[in-house]
Amino acid sequence: MLTLFHHPLYASCRFVRLSFGEYGEELALIEERPWARRQEFLSLNPAGTIPVLLAEGDHPIVGATVIAEYLDETRGALKREKRLMAEDSVQRAEIRRLVDWYLTKTEADVTRHLVRERALKPHMSSAEGGGSPDSATIRAARANVRQHLKYTNWLAGTRDWLAGKKLSYADLAAAGALSVLDYLGEVEWRDYPAARDWYSRMKSRPSFRSLLTDRVRGLSPVSHYADLDF
Amino acid sequence: MLTLFHHPLYASCRFVRLSFGEYGEELALIEERPWARRQEFLSLNPAGTIPVLLAEGDHPIVGATVIAEYLDETRGALKREKRLMAEDSVQRAEIRRLVDWYLTKTEADVTRHLVRERALKPHMSSAEGGGSPDSATIRAARANVRQHLKYTNWLAGTRDWLAGKKLSYADLAAAGALSVLDYLGEVEWRDYPAARDWYSRMKSRPSFRSLLTDRVRGLSPVSHYADLDF
Repeated sequence: MLTLFHHPLYASCRFVRLSFGEYGEELALIEERPWARRQEFLSLNPAGTIPVLLAEGDHPIVGATVIAEYLDETRGALKREKRLMAEDSVQRAEIRRLVDWYLTKTEADVTRHLVRERALKPHMSSAEGGGSPDSATIRAARANVRQHLKYTNWLAGTRDWLAGKKLSYADLAAAGALSVLDYLGEVEWRDYPAARDWYSRMKSRPSFRSLLTDRVRGLSPVSHYADLDF
Repeated sequence: MLTLFHHPLYASCRFVRLSFGEYGEELALIEERPWARRQEFLSLNPAGTIPVLLAEGDHPIVGATVIAEYLDETRGALKREKRLMAEDSVQRAEIRRLVDWYLTKTEADVTRHLVRERALKPHMSSAEGGGSPDSATIRAARANVRQHLKYTNWLAGTRDWLAGKKLSYADLAAAGALSVLDYLGEVEWRDYPAARDWYSRMKSRPSFRSLLTDRVRGLSPVSHYADLDF
């Protein structure tokens, strides 16, 4: 079994867990607090970021998209209909564009700030950047949530899955990000019916189960978080 | 000839130009000011970011790493010894890790801030975020430059090329980032002899030529910028 250094409220780590889950492969999970800059962890990844996968031979594979490419090359390419990447290069670029959208753009506009202010700061020392939540940051991130839900709603309403006709990494990246926001109660699902319908399909996949039992110290998820009918 | 929407002082755009250059393929360049959020450009890439490549059939390929994967799949895989990616999956992950390092981490710690404060703000309206350079931001970015040069110096001193035995995307990403910082005169090369030696090899490659003639309105490069012996 391979090992993943992760944090339960990082969208990029959830994306990796969902991806291995879709291929029926279990991961040994080690919770890492990247802001603590643990020395042994920095020797695996000098950037100090998560996720990091310890692959065969304990080679560290660093970063969500790098892990996804590694997974595709070593497993996905043999999965035929269940493969999470397309065969065609233009279609592959579309999947990668959306993975970047949710793990980089949604992260920078919304997710990182809400997770940090609402969930992580209370557990950080002041040297690590802890303290009271910053309400201006939370307000700005909440204003941005709507754009990302609107875009997801448009994708889900015009395509079978977010990147096209098949389930792909794009859906798992979006689900990674939106499930974190949902945990925090930041998504008004009723305003985005197509996104809601898509998310409901995602939530009932077996790969999603372990995410629905995630709990973070000092912050319970909203009541509907684990409901398949929400 | 394919078309690239780019800006001359964006490391990620320089990385793409170098990559096509290494394969001897010319690109038609369109200079895009992403902060202006031009409507026609947003219809190609709703994220509003550069670079964007118009590939065969005018399909927009969005983002530097996505373009690099597309280029590898459609050209690189046939280039044998000249291929900018490895064959082995673990080695490919190391190349991708370093591309991310220079285009995401160096960008966030250093490049983005120095380019914005020193080169772009004078050409932005106040609605676009223009104004006087922020000296605290410049100071913080300059403090971070050293870490990134030190790491590059360590990589260049312990490996033939930054990711291993062969020239790869990792070298082109690092060269994209460091050439922007060099244009701005932010690199004290004499403190980093192995990095300097590596950069000198990069600079004399034919793919580098078009970068060395780049000029940005209102800001000339440092005197040694285009010198192969610096």
